[in-house]
Amino acid sequence: MPPLEIDGHRLWATLMASAEIGALSEGGLRRLALSDADRQMRDLLASWAAEGGYQVLVDQLGTMILRRRGTSEALQPVVIGSHLDTQWAGGRFDGILGVLAGLEVLRSLDDNGIETLRPIEVVNWTNEEGARFQPQMLCSLAFAGKVSVEWIYERQERDGRRFVEELERIGYRGLEPVQRSVDSYFELHIEQGPRLDASGLKVGIVIGGYASRGMRIIVRGENAHVGPTPMERRSNALVGAALVAAAVNDIGWQHASSDGKTTAARLDLEPNLPGIISHLAQLYIDFRHPEMVGLAAMEEEVRKAIVDCAERSRTSIEIAEAWGFGGLEFDQGLVALLRSTARRLGITTMDLKSQAGHDAYNVAAVAPACMIFTPCDDGISHSVRESTRIEDQLPGINVLLNAVVARANQNQGT
Amino acid sequence: MPPLEIDGHRLWATLMASAEIGALSEGGLRRLALSDADRQMRDLLASWAAEGGYQVLVDQLGTMILRRRGTSEALQPVVIGSHLDTQWAGGRFDGILGVLAGLEVLRSLDDNGIETLRPIEVVNWTNEEGARFQPQMLCSLAFAGKVSVEWIYERQERDGRRFVEELERIGYRGLEPVQRSVDSYFELHIEQGPRLDASGLKVGIVIGGYASRGMRIIVRGENAHVGPTPMERRSNALVGAALVAAAVNDIGWQHASSDGKTTAARLDLEPNLPGIISHLAQLYIDFRHPEMVGLAAMEEEVRKAIVDCAERSRTSIEIAEAWGFGGLEFDQGLVALLRSTARRLGITTMDLKSQAGHDAYNVAAVAPACMIFTPCDDGISHSVRESTRIEDQLPGINVLLNAVVARANQNQGT
Repeated sequence: MPPLEIDGHRLWATLMASAEIGALSEGGLRRLALSDADRQMRDLLASWAAEGGYQVLVDQLGTMILRRRGTSEALQPVVIGSHLDTQWAGGRFDGILGVLAGLEVLRSLDDNGIETLRPIEVVNWTNEEGARFQPQMLCSLAFAGKVSVEWIYERQERDGRRFVEELERIGYRGLEPVQRSVDSYFELHIEQGPRLDASGLKVGIVIGGYASRGMRIIVRGENAHVGPTPMERRSNALVGAALVAAAVNDIGWQHASSDGKTTAARLDLEPNLPGIISHLAQLYIDFRHPEMVGLAAMEEEVRKAIVDCAERSRTSIEIAEAWGFGGLEFDQGLVALLRSTARRLGITTMDLKSQAGHDAYNVAAVAPACMIFTPCDDGISHSVRESTRIEDQLPGINVLLNAVVARANQNQGT
Repeated sequence: MPPLEIDGHRLWATLMASAEIGALSEGGLRRLALSDADRQMRDLLASWAAEGGYQVLVDQLGTMILRRRGTSEALQPVVIGSHLDTQWAGGRFDGILGVLAGLEVLRSLDDNGIETLRPIEVVNWTNEEGARFQPQMLCSLAFAGKVSVEWIYERQERDGRRFVEELERIGYRGLEPVQRSVDSYFELHIEQGPRLDASGLKVGIVIGGYASRGMRIIVRGENAHVGPTPMERRSNALVGAALVAAAVNDIGWQHASSDGKTTAARLDLEPNLPGIISHLAQLYIDFRHPEMVGLAAMEEEVRKAIVDCAERSRTSIEIAEAWGFGGLEFDQGLVALLRSTARRLGITTMDLKSQAGHDAYNVAAVAPACMIFTPCDDGISHSVRESTRIEDQLPGINVLLNAVVARANQNQGT
């Protein structure tokens, strides 16, 4: 069978239709999970599925599954997944490209009258970004059996609204069970880093993920008047948190040569008013490293810095919550399939480790999973400046298309 | 005439009645300006005024004036003022003591059947704290002619509600003009610093105010993904603001031996989410020094630090707004009157400079003004831990009572 090819014009048209829903005047998207814009995008995806004749299933967490029948429906499906939600000030491709490329895979098979042995599914995961409901990659966590559906239902956004309320409000509380068996999982995503863009290559084979760790840090100080209180009697939670943020940033720079990085990402203060010293700060930090051993070194430095910052600011500082992800390797069989498919298409690839979190990490815990990266200009994502062109995306999507078809025609296993 | 004496039991009873309105479970008060609690407290003050037979006037900004007639009503009044609003997590005495001590001065004159030549007024300034509407000491600014009533009407709190809406909502938009002539102004206040408490003395004669400066600083960075973005491509507004906050705190320590002090007081971030680098930070800082020359040195260091922090964090940082107050000396005639009155009562006093802002600063621009400080435990204020006892307050309030009566019987001037 000669290699199949994606229709770039049609794919770009769907991407630009998506780019209208939740559009920001400055160019990007704000399409937060379970918002009205999210509902509108889901409805559009469902209408495209209906046009293509694909079945649409919605699971208990709102994750959408578009299913194209296989000739052996009893076999487990090959799944292509990503997400249609965005950051608060996000781009038009992060996640979206993976779902709509998946849709385009299904359409290409129809165009060419090709049937596959296994069903092929395209999944739109709910709340991948974690911009509204934390943590990120929330619903694939439940797919992997790491948390319960009920736990996710009770997650609250900042203003107190619960996940389940918002899910019902937009009409996407489905009946399908969240945990189910799949043959394999493919996720195509923009790199969100500058290496492909700098190299001029169009396809990254993701061999695994950076080791990542997040922490929620609580700083406790004491209210006092900003004026008369002598320096030595102050216990300013904002100063404690600022010292931690600065120290965490320094630690990132110390590991930058081995591609470690750190973020002081979110800071909430109480009462956060001009005339009074704040008694409470909550700081979210994030640090990542290509190797587990590097991450462990960073973590030790962060823990030491916290002790030092508490002493310097006369506050008490504790790590209230810590979590990790990544530090994994993707399925070697699928990685080999991606490589051989690219070779067959005459496409040069680059091995990469993913630095961001992806639902593929969670899926990898329970099924063979892999990822393809495609370039994004300057490596910028989670920004309205995220940008790319269809010609930079097509090589990776053609690898996805042909690899998925190959996998969907394998009849070993279930 | 023998010295007059305040009824401590009665005064304490009014203080404890006030302490019920806006009470926090942890002991202090949250009675923000123009809130329902503020209205309730104002109504209580008005009912006490009615019981005493004092006229109640309300000006266009809601500032309340309780007036006890003089025998020469054509003479300008002697005014005792402070405020009944509190910080977000404030104490039971800051401001409140000054207003209720003023009420007690009027009551003591009635108890003793004493008439004065000049009318004596007790003023409750609207929104001294600035916890809801910035800047602090908002309405005495208009009294001094530094801003207009209309400008104050349009001030907005964080959620967008306008001053004038809230003023009307609580029913305290009065008709009296805000600018008017007064003979003299007395303000009694807890020290909000530890010097009286540490010395064991009960009365501070406030000779002037620390030089104070506030700044609103804007840090501009760029949104990006917290994961893959290399350190050298990051421009994190939170890191820029944290570096400024830490530097400002260091500058406070460098001037601590000459009693300089600094505060990083409030920080707002956008979008302030875990997965995305924030592009915008707004930081309020405050610094104070006993001498103008010391303040100028601090300001120079702050400005240098801002340039350095911008470079280190690869952000752009600007001072969006700056304001100052203090650096003034109170009226020498009134200060001498307070000293001689204390001597007559056999009370040892200590000269102090005020470190916090007070409405007396604004009044001093247009009329002779002075202040008396009384102790507060450990110097703590703007905190629910603010605490004192009536016996520590009575010496200062008796100085107030007798000085005000002396001044109200002087018939020079208008």
